[in-house]
Amino acid sequence: MKDYDIIVIGAGHAGCEAALAGARMGCSTLLLTLNVDHVALMPCNPSIGGPAKGNIVREIDALGGQMGKNIDKTYVNMQLLNTSKGPAVHALRAQADKHKYQVEMTKTLQEQDNLDLKQTVVTDIIVNQGSVTGVKTITGISYNAQKVVLTTGTSLDGKVIIGDVKYTGGRQGEFAAVKLSDSLKEAGIKLERFQTATPPRIDKDTVDFSKMRVHPGSEDKLQFSFFESRAEREQIPCWLTRTNEATKEVIKENIEHSPLSTGIVEGEGPRYCPSIDRKVMRFPDKKSHQVFVEPEGADTNELYLNGLTTSMPEDFQEDIIRSVPGLEEAEIVRPGYAVEYDYIPPHQLQPTMENKVVNDLYTAGQINGTSGYEEAGAQGLMAGINAVLSLKEEEPLILKRSDSYIGVLIDDLVTKGTSEPYRMLTSRAEYRLLLRHDNADLRLSETGYKIGLLDKENYQQVADKRQKIESTIKILDNVRITPTKEVRGVLKELGSGGLKKPVNLTTILQRPEVDYDDLKKLSDEVPEIDLEIEEQVKIRTKYRGYIEKQLKQVEKFKEMEEKKLPEDINYHKLDNVRLEAREKLNRIRPVSLGQASRISGVSPADISSLMIYLEQLDRGGK
Amino acid sequence: MKDYDIIVIGAGHAGCEAALAGARMGCSTLLLTLNVDHVALMPCNPSIGGPAKGNIVREIDALGGQMGKNIDKTYVNMQLLNTSKGPAVHALRAQADKHKYQVEMTKTLQEQDNLDLKQTVVTDIIVNQGSVTGVKTITGISYNAQKVVLTTGTSLDGKVIIGDVKYTGGRQGEFAAVKLSDSLKEAGIKLERFQTATPPRIDKDTVDFSKMRVHPGSEDKLQFSFFESRAEREQIPCWLTRTNEATKEVIKENIEHSPLSTGIVEGEGPRYCPSIDRKVMRFPDKKSHQVFVEPEGADTNELYLNGLTTSMPEDFQEDIIRSVPGLEEAEIVRPGYAVEYDYIPPHQLQPTMENKVVNDLYTAGQINGTSGYEEAGAQGLMAGINAVLSLKEEEPLILKRSDSYIGVLIDDLVTKGTSEPYRMLTSRAEYRLLLRHDNADLRLSETGYKIGLLDKENYQQVADKRQKIESTIKILDNVRITPTKEVRGVLKELGSGGLKKPVNLTTILQRPEVDYDDLKKLSDEVPEIDLEIEEQVKIRTKYRGYIEKQLKQVEKFKEMEEKKLPEDINYHKLDNVRLEAREKLNRIRPVSLGQASRISGVSPADISSLMIYLEQLDRGGK
Ligand SMILES: Cc1cc2nc3c(=O)[nH]c(=O)nc-3n(C[C@H](O)[C@H](O)[C@H](O)COP(=O)(O)OP(=O)(O)OC[C@H]3O[C@@H](n4cnc5c(N)ncnc54)[C@H](O)[C@@H]3O)c2cc1C
Ligand SMILES: Cc1cc2nc3c(=O)[nH]c(=O)nc-3n(C[C@H](O)[C@H](O)[C@H](O)COP(=O)(O)OP(=O)(O)OC[C@H]3O[C@@H](n4cnc5c(N)ncnc54)[C@H](O)[C@@H]3O)c2cc1C
Repeated sequence: MKDYDIIVIGAGHAGCEAALAGARMGCSTLLLTLNVDHVALMPCNPSIGGPAKGNIVREIDALGGQMGKNIDKTYVNMQLLNTSKGPAVHALRAQADKHKYQVEMTKTLQEQDNLDLKQTVVTDIIVNQGSVTGVKTITGISYNAQKVVLTTGTSLDGKVIIGDVKYTGGRQGEFAAVKLSDSLKEAGIKLERFQTATPPRIDKDTVDFSKMRVHPGSEDKLQFSFFESRAEREQIPCWLTRTNEATKEVIKENIEHSPLSTGIVEGEGPRYCPSIDRKVMRFPDKKSHQVFVEPEGADTNELYLNGLTTSMPEDFQEDIIRSVPGLEEAEIVRPGYAVEYDYIPPHQLQPTMENKVVNDLYTAGQINGTSGYEEAGAQGLMAGINAVLSLKEEEPLILKRSDSYIGVLIDDLVTKGTSEPYRMLTSRAEYRLLLRHDNADLRLSETGYKIGLLDKENYQQVADKRQKIESTIKILDNVRITPTKEVRGVLKELGSGGLKKPVNLTTILQRPEVDYDDLKKLSDEVPEIDLEIEEQVKIRTKYRGYIEKQLKQVEKFKEMEEKKLPEDINYHKLDNVRLEAREKLNRIRPVSLGQASRISGVSPADISSLMIYLEQLDRGGK
Repeated sequence: MKDYDIIVIGAGHAGCEAALAGARMGCSTLLLTLNVDHVALMPCNPSIGGPAKGNIVREIDALGGQMGKNIDKTYVNMQLLNTSKGPAVHALRAQADKHKYQVEMTKTLQEQDNLDLKQTVVTDIIVNQGSVTGVKTITGISYNAQKVVLTTGTSLDGKVIIGDVKYTGGRQGEFAAVKLSDSLKEAGIKLERFQTATPPRIDKDTVDFSKMRVHPGSEDKLQFSFFESRAEREQIPCWLTRTNEATKEVIKENIEHSPLSTGIVEGEGPRYCPSIDRKVMRFPDKKSHQVFVEPEGADTNELYLNGLTTSMPEDFQEDIIRSVPGLEEAEIVRPGYAVEYDYIPPHQLQPTMENKVVNDLYTAGQINGTSGYEEAGAQGLMAGINAVLSLKEEEPLILKRSDSYIGVLIDDLVTKGTSEPYRMLTSRAEYRLLLRHDNADLRLSETGYKIGLLDKENYQQVADKRQKIESTIKILDNVRITPTKEVRGVLKELGSGGLKKPVNLTTILQRPEVDYDDLKKLSDEVPEIDLEIEEQVKIRTKYRGYIEKQLKQVEKFKEMEEKKLPEDINYHKLDNVRLEAREKLNRIRPVSLGQASRISGVSPADISSLMIYLEQLDRGGK
């Protein structure tokens, strides 16, 4: 069969981004997947975005990825979260029409030049002298490629679990990749077990919505992508109800059937998406838990029960659900279930997403121990990008923690590993105020353009935006307002305090009660600008102090980040570094001093010793 | 879990009709299926209808089934076939938007009262004292019901075959039902093996259509359903190309890799959908075979290669395809494959679709040894109907060969069995001129209404139509035309011969060159009627002689059909019946003398002996 530059295995959220990046950056790319009807399937919550995750989607977009555009085309409900809080935690979240999301992504793949999408089961990676050279499929056919990106999600030796029963299968109804798991082990890759679970889906016609609170979509026109403007569309509401004492009773009475008790599940599950069984048992005093009842699309009656994840036996699932107001008569269409699977503990990854043991093999998505579509998409994108850059013998793209949540995600994975399915949270980022969802384009589109992924036109749009923001800020910085009577009058009208001495417009805009348009009453030089420019000007002005402080921290850390650690360093010989740290360093093999400093178990004292050693090295010692 | 009146296993084409019939006739119905995203999936050609099959769809519609309505909602190309031939072989054929077909059917199921749709894997039927009482699922949960309808298609112990490789799986990407197969065998049901195969799907963007002939959809407004009128919509063309000498060469050179040579496939395949390998080898002198290139929907780039079925290894599939004009660069998205599966040889069926060994168990669709969506839908409908009628202790519905293709289908199955996947053909019907696609409503809607499946409103519409047809025919029969000069002038203008003596309008309409509207020039009494009434009046008038002849034959056979055979008859004791016939009769256990007469191996002499025996019985002898 035809040879390719890049083969991507698995058309999930990671695989789609990886394949599109590969093809768009000019490489002949083959995307192999179990079932073409399941491209970009959302096996869990049909929702994209939310705190931190929404930022990732916008970062993917700014780099030239597809997730943001695809959800914009197919959402049925979109909201801007946390609007009462500061801009660092604002986040978009959308409910997808699950089916349409798949159809649109499949179409995008099929219409992409340089990209072939084929249905098959990959059983083996082919490794020659430490490098992957292709893949073998279930029918015995092989495909060769220079780079292979593995994004098979939860399918490696997957087991589906409902109640007391456990059977071989990937996501429900799909094959598990048992043979592929063996092939990876043979190549020297270490695998461990994780698990994740999903709530039951129910039939809309059996729900009493009068007992729930409605959450309509936002009335503002919202979208993820910075680039393709979308028409507004009719939205479908979500609904909110809560568990109660009866729910607790059902669960407590039948807890011996929960995987919590039976011990049927081997791997660790995602702490941030606990099952309802776990929530009830862990917080016995909590009277009630939220349940969001969310549509799965415009053309289906299925509803997702966000908050009621469980893989108890089906009959108890029914009892649990029916204890909740509005769900007394609910009929389950698909029971909740858990899936247990092999993942590749990510200390085996380089920051480029390339495997440390097998050259030219990149892995991305749930296979690296993460959870979530956005986390998968981001990794897929970065793996695809770095596969191409490496092929072209160009510098790899390693995003920094101060650049992006994507940088935080990958650095966390390769530096800290993860003992449970890793999910992105706002709290994982040190520089939250810099990594806002509103400025992802300003942060990353230049990078996207430089590597050849983002179109020139899109890049130019952002460059223009940046220029307008900066020129406006300059004007505000330079225009001075003297405390005339007229000025005092305007300020008083705004409910703002008096003015003692001349200040620039920036200082005035920093007052919480002053809005951009108010400045126009104080000066003729305040330019007319678009709303999105205004938003940036306001955030940068009002939060200038905090932003500058974070930028200084970034600067400070940059030095450490830039201090590279030689690849062949023998940590076992560093007697001044504590044993635990030596082992961790040896296992993770950080690329920079900065990365080393973030490894848990590596203390500041260890870092000092390491620095001394590096200085010796620089001076030519060994 | 909740108990149901009826459980249907498998939401394929048979299962959907069975479940809808059950629920609409007032029974609480549960439909269990492997994956709710795969409801009404078309694993092969995304097309409904064609000769004889199109008639079945209209019969399903006339009885109150769903297939016709669903394809009307979702077709992308519809044509009326054989318009140059007589009305007996006219047939509608539509290309479906495969995805939308599934979405619409799923919605219909979900919105149906009395019907619960649930995703699960059924592993066992539960049999108590010779009757089925429920089913067990993979998670250990059981559901009880009074009737169970089994419609699992090709999944019983399914094996997928591509090239030299054979692995466990149902339709590609689905689980095979291995355990369910065992459970049926345990219950005493005999299973045998069949196989079927599907061609590769290719990417539209890699096809050169300039080398093919376009087949646009019909410009007339066409639809399957008699009842729900549909708006016209934009159609997508099909394309025609042909294999050539190069194709033959590729196949001949690699024939050792074809399942024809490797012997990897156990079961018999469908004679009327042979693989391209088989066509080339069986007809070595034929220079070329047609290949219809058909869209799979509006939202997908996948094209179906009608005529290029093969399950050769993927690389040879590519070579075969690329030998065909327009497909020189075609990229395969999904390779062709064969599936081998257990079916229930249908002599084990009663004409009600109930199993002879296990009471209250009905089977329908591919599991009974048939092939095709329409054949499956028809059986599902009849199984659902008869399950309900039996539950209500009403007379079963057994359609006659003179009623419908559905009657022919089921009678063929239970009487003759089948040694290869059974497909409906016009030639299987004795009374083709009666079983037209245009009069299915007149043939069957009264039945549909009487059993409580077809709405009153729909039935009334047909009753009105019938009344209008009959009153018009009466008028034509009664209005006499005398050969005046004026009349002769009109006829001459129509290019029709002279008139010697007075005749009625019917006689004139029987002239090939005379159309209904022409009659108005001859008489003021000719009523204004709708086009569909006119069509019926014309057919009944122009073909009156043939129709009456077929009706007489039906009458003659009716007597035999009505002569019931006692259930407990001991054929082995009938010394005057030949041994072979005795064995066949004993195996098939026909319900009527008519059915007995159609069993191959039962001669007219055997039937005479049987009649004599029945007369003795009637006279009280034993
Ligand atoms: C039951 C379940 C519950 C979940 N719950 C949550 C949750 O609560 N919160 C959350 O954030 N996330 C949850 N997720 C995780 C989320 O679905 C994944 O993180 C995300 O889809 C991962 O994307 P991916 O691209 O890595 O893998 P996937 O989206 O799973 O895609 C993998 C792709 O690889 C293909 N593939 C697999 N094996 C092969 C093979 N051998 N050959 C060819 N193709 C192959 C598959 O067909 C599929 O297309 C859950 C997932 C599951 C299955
Ligand atoms: C590879 C292939 C090639 C074909 N080629 C042709 C052809 O050339 N010409 C032609 O006319 N027809 C062809 N067909 C046949 C056509 O697809 C079938 O005849 C038709 O779909 C049969 O309908 P059905 O309802 O009997 O089964 P299906 O449509 O197959 O539906 C069976 C249903 O049962 C479900 N199911 C299976 N096992 C279980 C279980 N244990 N528990 C719960 N649910 C279960 C499945 O998920 C599915 O929904 C082909 C089919 C296949 C698979």
